[in-house]
Amino acid sequence: MMEGRANRRQVRVEFGHCDPAELVYYPTYFAWFDQSTHHLFESVGISWRELAARFGIQAPLVDAQVRFISPAAWGDHLEIESCVERWGNRSFVVSHRIVNAATGISVAEGKETRVCVQLRPGAPKGITATPIPSDIKKAFER
Amino acid sequence: MMEGRANRRQVRVEFGHCDPAELVYYPTYFAWFDQSTHHLFESVGISWRELAARFGIQAPLVDAQVRFISPAAWGDHLEIESCVERWGNRSFVVSHRIVNAATGISVAEGKETRVCVQLRPGAPKGITATPIPSDIKKAFER
Amino acid sequence: MMEGRANRRQVRVEFGHCDPAELVYYPTYFAWFDQSTHHLFESVGISWRELAARFGIQAPLVDAQVRFISPAAWGDHLEIESCVERWGNRSFVVSHRIVNAATGISVAEGKETRVCVQLRPGAPKGITATPIPSDIKKAFER
Amino acid sequence: MMEGRANRRQVRVEFGHCDPAELVYYPTYFAWFDQSTHHLFESVGISWRELAARFGIQAPLVDAQVRFISPAAWGDHLEIESCVERWGNRSFVVSHRIVNAATGISVAEGKETRVCVQLRPGAPKGITATPIPSDIKKAFER
Repeated sequence: MMEGRANRRQVRVEFGHCDPAELVYYPTYFAWFDQSTHHLFESVGISWRELAARFGIQAPLVDAQVRFISPAAWGDHLEIESCVERWGNRSFVVSHRIVNAATGISVAEGKETRVCVQLRPGAPKGITATPIPSDIKKAFER
Repeated sequence: MMEGRANRRQVRVEFGHCDPAELVYYPTYFAWFDQSTHHLFESVGISWRELAARFGIQAPLVDAQVRFISPAAWGDHLEIESCVERWGNRSFVVSHRIVNAATGISVAEGKETRVCVQLRPGAPKGITATPIPSDIKKAFER
Repeated sequence: MMEGRANRRQVRVEFGHCDPAELVYYPTYFAWFDQSTHHLFESVGISWRELAARFGIQAPLVDAQVRFISPAAWGDHLEIESCVERWGNRSFVVSHRIVNAATGISVAEGKETRVCVQLRPGAPKGITATPIPSDIKKAFER
Repeated sequence: MMEGRANRRQVRVEFGHCDPAELVYYPTYFAWFDQSTHHLFESVGISWRELAARFGIQAPLVDAQVRFISPAAWGDHLEIESCVERWGNRSFVVSHRIVNAATGISVAEGKETRVCVQLRPGAPKGITATPIPSDIKKAFER
């Protein structure tokens, strides 16, 4: 277990992110989580595309969850803070916290559990779980 | 605790649901969950719009989660089975199970926890939690 | 110029398709157009995936447009009728008409112009326009 | 006819914006157009929400189109330049040009035609076209 470096980014709630209740349509939070995980890896020098090109791996989701604390509405500016909360041998957990950037009020908290896999044509699902390359873990320690 | 009536619906995985990995882009599963909850309520005679018009309530999410079991790809036909897994006093949990309709293989399982609220202009967030109307619970017992 | 066979499909306007104005968020119409083009090809026995696997081609968009006639709202059932309006040598135009399935009122009309391309690694954009295979045109004449 | 003030903004092509062809899923361009129109109005001091609150109007679309010039792929940084190309009495045309921010290569060009409407409960569609307030046009001349 080791606390990952955090990355922060801002998103603005656009009209098209919102539903008839004038609040963020909830699947949108997961799109932001997914993007934020990619941005987090980039912040330590590893783009998501490099996972495949440089390390021969991918990191699909096995689990995702969100807890909604207060609603976000059209026009709000949100700050998303993301870090790797836990590194396992073959999987890792990214946690995301979203606050209203103007008020600091918590909006949502979530987690993504991702597993490190290699493409393996013969395997049942075409992939097999593989240990996370140590260079990736090291990049988060710097 | 009481098992809710289940509702089944099919969705087809379209090109636009998929990401560069040719698999369903994961936030899409939550859009299907949200739709499936609406369809579940309709299947017992209560459209989602009626929650507001007939009962004066709404049922926003407080928590959502998904566990991915096997990937779904462009062209797959999926069956989503949804039911109210648990009725609380002011909240309820809808569970969703997605299987590949052709093979029966499990694709994903998820839950949405929703809270029953009334619009209340004076309240801190503009809403207050309120007991779930008994007519709604009864509609699921029939 | 030859009138393509029409295909009809229905979509229901879900909560998540709508924006704070309670109307369909307009980019959603183009997602329906894209899906409808794929369904149209399937209706004549050619799945969109087969374009690549069987014919070695793809059919990306060069132009898309929509005209909005009357709004569609949450809960509406829409019927989308699609046909190939015009076959060129290397490009074709798919037209889509959307009506409210309950009232017959026109909701929107649109067109997609698509070009037939082959993957060509050496070419400037990695693709080159290529004549539409005659087997595809024939499939629409039956 | 008068050339509107231009506004520029950047978007990054995220994994989730892309389809199995690894290119931007085309309806996404219209989501960017819609957002860019809102940002354009804000750049002259009129937020989209103020259209309703301050002027009592809305500006729904009657027509939208896009022409694709070269594809945009995952990871690309795009610049979107938007301006009001033409002011009519009751309608206006917003044009959008998207270029690759790194190379300057044109990616797409589009137009949105929007009509100025007032909510009018008695009217056939619940709205009636109304002249564009002169304060709005003036805001774009400064």
